[in-house]
Amino acid sequence: MAVVAAGLVSNGDVSAVKAPATGRYAAFYSEVQNSRLGHPLPLPSVLKSSFKVVDGPPSSAAGSPDEIAKLFPCLFGQPSATLVPGDSTENLLGLKIGVVLSGGQAPGGHNVISGIFDYLQDRCKGSTLYGFRGGPAGIMKCKYVVLTPEYIYPYRNQGGFDMIRSGRDKIETPEQFKQAEETAVKLDLDGLLVIGGDDSNTNACLLAENFRSKNLKTKVIGCPKTIDGDLKCKEVPASFGFDTACKIYSEMIGNVMIDARSTGKYYHFVRLMGRAASHITLECALQTHPNITLIGEEVAAKKQTLKNVTDYIADVICKRAELGFNYGVILIPEGLIDFIPEVQQLIAELNEILAHDIVDEAGVWKKKLTPQSLHLFDFLPPAIQDQLMLERDPHGNVQVAKIETEKMLIQMVETELEVRKQGGAYKGQLGGQSHFLGYEGRCGLPSNFDATYCYALGYAAGALLHSGKTGLISSVGNLAAPVAEWTVGGTALTSLMDVERRHGKFKPVIKKAMVELDGAPFKKYASMREEWALENRYLSPGPIQFVGPVADKVNHTLLLELGAQV
Amino acid sequence: MAVVAAGLVSNGDVSAVKAPATGRYAAFYSEVQNSRLGHPLPLPSVLKSSFKVVDGPPSSAAGSPDEIAKLFPCLFGQPSATLVPGDSTENLLGLKIGVVLSGGQAPGGHNVISGIFDYLQDRCKGSTLYGFRGGPAGIMKCKYVVLTPEYIYPYRNQGGFDMIRSGRDKIETPEQFKQAEETAVKLDLDGLLVIGGDDSNTNACLLAENFRSKNLKTKVIGCPKTIDGDLKCKEVPASFGFDTACKIYSEMIGNVMIDARSTGKYYHFVRLMGRAASHITLECALQTHPNITLIGEEVAAKKQTLKNVTDYIADVICKRAELGFNYGVILIPEGLIDFIPEVQQLIAELNEILAHDIVDEAGVWKKKLTPQSLHLFDFLPPAIQDQLMLERDPHGNVQVAKIETEKMLIQMVETELEVRKQGGAYKGQLGGQSHFLGYEGRCGLPSNFDATYCYALGYAAGALLHSGKTGLISSVGNLAAPVAEWTVGGTALTSLMDVERRHGKFKPVIKKAMVELDGAPFKKYASMREEWALENRYLSPGPIQFVGPVADKVNHTLLLELGAQV
Repeated sequence: MAVVAAGLVSNGDVSAVKAPATGRYAAFYSEVQNSRLGHPLPLPSVLKSSFKVVDGPPSSAAGSPDEIAKLFPCLFGQPSATLVPGDSTENLLGLKIGVVLSGGQAPGGHNVISGIFDYLQDRCKGSTLYGFRGGPAGIMKCKYVVLTPEYIYPYRNQGGFDMIRSGRDKIETPEQFKQAEETAVKLDLDGLLVIGGDDSNTNACLLAENFRSKNLKTKVIGCPKTIDGDLKCKEVPASFGFDTACKIYSEMIGNVMIDARSTGKYYHFVRLMGRAASHITLECALQTHPNITLIGEEVAAKKQTLKNVTDYIADVICKRAELGFNYGVILIPEGLIDFIPEVQQLIAELNEILAHDIVDEAGVWKKKLTPQSLHLFDFLPPAIQDQLMLERDPHGNVQVAKIETEKMLIQMVETELEVRKQGGAYKGQLGGQSHFLGYEGRCGLPSNFDATYCYALGYAAGALLHSGKTGLISSVGNLAAPVAEWTVGGTALTSLMDVERRHGKFKPVIKKAMVELDGAPFKKYASMREEWALENRYLSPGPIQFVGPVADKVNHTLLLELGAQV
Repeated sequence: MAVVAAGLVSNGDVSAVKAPATGRYAAFYSEVQNSRLGHPLPLPSVLKSSFKVVDGPPSSAAGSPDEIAKLFPCLFGQPSATLVPGDSTENLLGLKIGVVLSGGQAPGGHNVISGIFDYLQDRCKGSTLYGFRGGPAGIMKCKYVVLTPEYIYPYRNQGGFDMIRSGRDKIETPEQFKQAEETAVKLDLDGLLVIGGDDSNTNACLLAENFRSKNLKTKVIGCPKTIDGDLKCKEVPASFGFDTACKIYSEMIGNVMIDARSTGKYYHFVRLMGRAASHITLECALQTHPNITLIGEEVAAKKQTLKNVTDYIADVICKRAELGFNYGVILIPEGLIDFIPEVQQLIAELNEILAHDIVDEAGVWKKKLTPQSLHLFDFLPPAIQDQLMLERDPHGNVQVAKIETEKMLIQMVETELEVRKQGGAYKGQLGGQSHFLGYEGRCGLPSNFDATYCYALGYAAGALLHSGKTGLISSVGNLAAPVAEWTVGGTALTSLMDVERRHGKFKPVIKKAMVELDGAPFKKYASMREEWALENRYLSPGPIQFVGPVADKVNHTLLLELGAQV
């Protein structure tokens, strides 16, 4: 076992981090971690020999093209790019490239960095790759590490973002853009790869626009990252990390299902990470076949109330009880209550009241609530009432993410079942068990799919920067086919954008891809859910396998969206 | 893919279950589940050809042999048995054997049943295996299913106990013994295999004694099951399920560690299943190298208070903050507070007060607490105070298992750090995240070790029953060696017993194996913990692998206890 250390390479700049070495040592790895270091990563054929970058037709925007054109005068309308076999007119000089991780962890991030690093080593000798530390703040503060083969090695095919860490700062004010420019100039950067979600890629495009408008040579390319799966479109069929995270959660859900069936007396309410969209919950349902799955987008489309949701769960529990099944598994998206109009209304009213009024013990303050909101508030379990009253963020808003929706639903379903019991419609006893699956899935060892996909995304980003492209997001497609046949290119970030009005101004946004109720994954689920509700079709996907015939299976959502049969 | 159905085989008796089919269909399996169906299970050499059963010397008891002799007049002193190569004088008639699962799920239970089934098929043609449904209650109510190759097939190498389900009923009153006798006579049972933990094996021995004393031919053999790992001794080096459960928990802990290091701002407080002993927590620590590990047995031995524990955690957090690490992972055994003498005292006082006194809002009731208990009560976070006052079991006792120790510790450590902050000794901000890992680990697909070990335990149980043994626990040893060299036999259950005085009577008990503070696993941990506390030696074991070079690794606890270097 080679003792390869990371984190001990000296930084190219004295302003770089002074924290103690937090790096990894392959000598301290588990057997599985070590086995992953040597895992071979196939590249799409087009990346394996000479290629050239071909431009497509001019692009537009996902919406409000006129506004997007105003916001991105230099970049709007630029074509997307595709890599095709052929001889490129290669820049023979080495490049100076920076890479940054932005936002929450997702399995595979280290492979994106390995991919661009290897591209530079293979195709652009003499290049330097700077890893900005701690997210976009690392760019603004010029905190970086020079990435070397020895530094990168222990992170290959490993989970986490700890090679250079991530951060949630944004580069958006004029001062912050200025700082980014200074770093770009100081390091003489030819390019920057921003690995992040929808917001980070929007900001990457703003940075590209800014650099271009200032006539800086620094190009900016984005890369689609988020376990939530809500950054995707035709050209960018998947964000990395989703595949691994869903497989990890599904392993746990499958285990809990077998436990539920073995014990015969518990209902497991499993809340899953993914606040904005319910892709994770839907994918885990497709992988495991739970009795009940709540999809936020459907709840919103049907304008369901919390009472509707509670009744639906209670209905299934009662039907199952009649069949002799007093157990089950229920999947709940983290963002569920954000999708319920009446809850949003209540929270808005509470935010207002708490900001301006005195909340008295006797409850006189409640008179300020509208009748509907008062009714809903009284319907909520006391613990949730307390959370709504107490947990505020620095802006005085309720911290919805901290509300333990799974526990709330257990209590509300218990109350509803108690009523039905008294009416003779239910004889059982709800044994509710709550789970939250979140952090466990963000930093697992990437699945073979995520490992390969990320490596290709990073390698492609290298090619795009090398050919002088900016304002594109690295795009690898045809993912249902063998890796050799994957397509490679870059999509104009402006083409993914629309505007939102905030504080009286138009802001560009890449719209989050929500679960489409007429999309193949949801339709597949909808066609099965009645059977799953009553007939116990539990599937236990088991732990992710890295070798053997089952190791290369891709998630259901992606395959269904690509038109494959699952 | 063969469509093999289970659960649809008609029962031999009309009193058998009428619930709808809950069985499994391999056609509905995940790829990994399917791949496990064909996983080959090697047997120890001695089980692969002719063998005979050799008796050892007379046995005694783990303690109080005179009392054990009185409680087991027929069985006390009987020798343990070892299988050695040789010609057995085989009973050529088929046997009628029953098998039952007792208590909580543990990965591998289905393989014990497969093992005894295959033994009977291979070595005792014409035998019948009855699976008693729903645990010991199935024996008493004569609820069973006749196990056939088709019935068993889909459960091979699968997790869960759902083939015949388990239960927590006990056979202990004279009426219950009578019911068990009636079933034994009705089915003409030659033998019964009881798969369970310490209590279930004690009860198996009482049943063996009872059958023997009534001159029934039915023999009873036990099998060591519990993920908690607290049923073990020299002759029975491991209970099955521990290996898999710890690996599943360690996968999650390893992922959370990488997340903690990547994010750099959270302390994850992870409570792990295992109430009586802290083996699971210790094993997970050896597999993952957390910053802090609490071992209940050590807390008890050092007579630590909750304040001591809180201070220890706060000390490490402050030292880490000085090194620039404002993140970490802390493992907590589920049973922690049971090990803290002052908490036990407080709970005893509360049980007494709540049984007899009125609890007034103003808190006058608190005057009934001793000063130490009052002091501790006031030290506890309000949410925990509420749990102590509200959650009672049907006997009026506090439900200690429902207390979320991980959340309690987060709050107490937060309070302590706030004090230190005011004193200038700490500058950070504790980002506490709580986790409970429990149900996720009980029904996972068994690791290769558990799959093989369980199959051998079941096969050995068949051999013991076939040779007319009773009151033994199936014992497979030499587990650090290749499977071929594993030893096989049965240990006299009375030799594992001591007595406890309950309600003025002596009761036999197999003492739970606690974490030994001078045992190799704890000593290994203790020698490393200071390094792990401050130097981030996180190991991410990754998901259990079923094929490839890393698939057959055994857990650290077992290897260290067997004297192997880990």
